[in-house]
Amino acid sequence: MAAGKFITFEGGEGAGKSTQCRLLADRLEASGLEVIVTREPGGTEAAEAIRALLVDGAVDRWDATTEALLHFAARRNHMVDLVWPALARGTWVVCDRFADSTMAYQGYAMKLGRSAIETLNDLVLGDFAPDLTFILDLPVELGLARAAERGGADRYERMDAAFHQTLRDAFLDIAARDPTRCHVVDGAGDVETIAAAVHAHVSKTFAASRT
Amino acid sequence: MAAGKFITFEGGEGAGKSTQCRLLADRLEASGLEVIVTREPGGTEAAEAIRALLVDGAVDRWDATTEALLHFAARRNHMVDLVWPALARGTWVVCDRFADSTMAYQGYAMKLGRSAIETLNDLVLGDFAPDLTFILDLPVELGLARAAERGGADRYERMDAAFHQTLRDAFLDIAARDPTRCHVVDGAGDVETIAAAVHAHVSKTFAASRT
Repeated sequence: MAAGKFITFEGGEGAGKSTQCRLLADRLEASGLEVIVTREPGGTEAAEAIRALLVDGAVDRWDATTEALLHFAARRNHMVDLVWPALARGTWVVCDRFADSTMAYQGYAMKLGRSAIETLNDLVLGDFAPDLTFILDLPVELGLARAAERGGADRYERMDAAFHQTLRDAFLDIAARDPTRCHVVDGAGDVETIAAAVHAHVSKTFAASRT
Repeated sequence: MAAGKFITFEGGEGAGKSTQCRLLADRLEASGLEVIVTREPGGTEAAEAIRALLVDGAVDRWDATTEALLHFAARRNHMVDLVWPALARGTWVVCDRFADSTMAYQGYAMKLGRSAIETLNDLVLGDFAPDLTFILDLPVELGLARAAERGGADRYERMDAAFHQTLRDAFLDIAARDPTRCHVVDGAGDVETIAAAVHAHVSKTFAASRT
């Protein structure tokens, strides 16, 4: 049996990542694949306990280095306990945020730098990377307005607009550096139109490996 | 005003680290110094929340990489929010466990290797290191028996005897590699005798910098 594929969705607050994760998983399952939808930080009980430390509390609770370490700790647990075993048994994994978010948030927007994040990435993931990453891109004001609608702004959503603009630019720079893996999608469009485009890109990318 | 000194106590379970931290702090305070006694993992409210993730739960809750990341995340918070500001204002800081414990536990006993821990150490501490480290050394059986007496064995205390023997050897190897900073003390002796020897070594080491 072929190993499963690991597909991640990235982007700022309110970009529609969790919705698109579910819609892609529905389409993949409809085509007969085993699919898990998960998220970071979190995805396992232990990693969700780390997530709680990250998304709750004061904006200045952690410095950028501490945050990056906590994100990679949660990621390591998620990979070891859930994602890598699932991929090994042929299950596809669709993940709401992954290492590009740590690079964008802590590396770029919180100014830790690319090198520190790459060092942690090597330590935690080795040469593992997603098979495909969708960057959902949309104007900052639109994303924050959508996030506000669902209420209960978390610690990251409460950071200022300049922070979120830096984030948007960061995701686009990350995508430009890795165009084979990363596919930028206009997140401002209609949900079903985006979902169809995402699924079409997945089908094209993995045409050779579909069973 | 001279910067404070950072003195750490290291060693296995039941070695008497917390007792010796307090006794050294008492003597330093009696000589007119400002002293903080703290511990790792933890020492701040935020880092204690990370500590709870590490010391509670099943022995196999985290893999070695995840554990090392959590320890360094707690350490970074402890340094940024408590230790570095204290040292900068001239306060001496006495700390129950520090980076040598991460090297011994995750690097040696959990087999992550020296290099991974050194990478994290560089990222989190830069070229900062304790001014002086006491390694409290004693036979594994004696340490575990003492730890058992105080009851409520935590996650690390529940690891097996071979693990704790590897730990003892690890601390001695760490001390041998850095003999200027590390001072090995026989932890099996009388508490007051050890405390007097520790204080004498501190006085000798920092004679030039005492105000």
